[in-house]
Amino acid sequence: MKIEGRNAVLELLKTDKAVDKLLMQKGAEGSTGRIFAMAREKNIRVQFADARALDRESESGRHQGVIAFLSDYEYADFSDLLLPKAGGRMVIVCDGIEDVHNLGSILRVAECAGADGVVIPKNKSAQVTGAVIRISEGAANHIRVARVPGVNYAVDKLKQSGYWVYGLEADGEDIYASDLTGDIALIVGGEDSGISPLTRKKCDKILSLPLCGKVNSLNASVALGIAAYEAVRQRR
Amino acid sequence: MKIEGRNAVLELLKTDKAVDKLLMQKGAEGSTGRIFAMAREKNIRVQFADARALDRESESGRHQGVIAFLSDYEYADFSDLLLPKAGGRMVIVCDGIEDVHNLGSILRVAECAGADGVVIPKNKSAQVTGAVIRISEGAANHIRVARVPGVNYAVDKLKQSGYWVYGLEADGEDIYASDLTGDIALIVGGEDSGISPLTRKKCDKILSLPLCGKVNSLNASVALGIAAYEAVRQRR
Repeated sequence: MKIEGRNAVLELLKTDKAVDKLLMQKGAEGSTGRIFAMAREKNIRVQFADARALDRESESGRHQGVIAFLSDYEYADFSDLLLPKAGGRMVIVCDGIEDVHNLGSILRVAECAGADGVVIPKNKSAQVTGAVIRISEGAANHIRVARVPGVNYAVDKLKQSGYWVYGLEADGEDIYASDLTGDIALIVGGEDSGISPLTRKKCDKILSLPLCGKVNSLNASVALGIAAYEAVRQRR
Repeated sequence: MKIEGRNAVLELLKTDKAVDKLLMQKGAEGSTGRIFAMAREKNIRVQFADARALDRESESGRHQGVIAFLSDYEYADFSDLLLPKAGGRMVIVCDGIEDVHNLGSILRVAECAGADGVVIPKNKSAQVTGAVIRISEGAANHIRVARVPGVNYAVDKLKQSGYWVYGLEADGEDIYASDLTGDIALIVGGEDSGISPLTRKKCDKILSLPLCGKVNSLNASVALGIAAYEAVRQRR
């Protein structure tokens, strides 16, 4: 889907809609500077081209030097992840994963480990853009990604639905001494911020990986991969 | 360490030394075009600045518009990884990891899993530059990284020294049915190329992770993380 024209794109950038990229006319002036700044702030890819290239891409014929490409990604219903399932459910909950590379890697890992879905909040989180789909090596198209108003809302609903909710962080119980069969939700926090304090409190348990070196943390998608595959191992 | 001047930098770029970045003068001409092209080909970061900035950085005063910053990273001796050790050794061998992000992530994972060292070939491989150290979150400074003339040479020496050498790839034996205690070397291949055919033949076994989804591969550092942590689990 394309959104064209300066005001339309400005309004679009104020929403949480997943914008794939902006095509902007070289040397354009006026409010395009503000559009460019907002796009940069939101980590949206900006591509510059000459007027003819924009004319070719334009559907309305009135692009005013800027065209936004929206992701057509279809999110799943969160309620689908709450349905009972034989053999044990596994859901990944992202808490503050703002980096598109991290989200893409998490989707790839979740899909490979056979997770039933990934939950992301609508705010303060990377959304499933074209870049995320690409980084996930297409896994985003094979796994259900559900958006929720907030992580705490999701955790409450998951617990009500029978999930054991486990936060992946340091200073928790040894993951290799924990039972990961049954219905589990694994919460992954952002690299800098970690899991938010309230969410951490809501967890049934905090699970930790042994860290044998001097660096005190693993990358979010790597930690998730190790934890999700420990669940895979235990479930076989 | 800094190398300054066009000829000196050109010669430097012909070697396998780990160049961190090039500082080049804006608008410089002559052989700087060739230097820029070589740097791009080798994935070396190039930063442009005005003449005054180069003058400030210059130690010799004769930079001719180009200064190369070399990594001061101290590689370990490969022979150190061949020494016996109580409790089982674990070494990671990179085969064709050309992307600095992948190498940085691999070093971070290897260090967290308590590996004894990481082996990289001198050619067709990312080297430990400042970018790699940064991406590894400093893990590169805590784990031994040894450079070898080639991966097959390293595999031969590791086998002679008593290591079991396992390639991580699809179509192998189930990693969860494999014994990962004792002395093991895990080989990780590049994302596109995988492990080279000759190296694959030299492996004692090819080990695979179960892939439960439709995407047929995990990222190199994630796959390594899962395999190395399965070794950690088994060794406890």
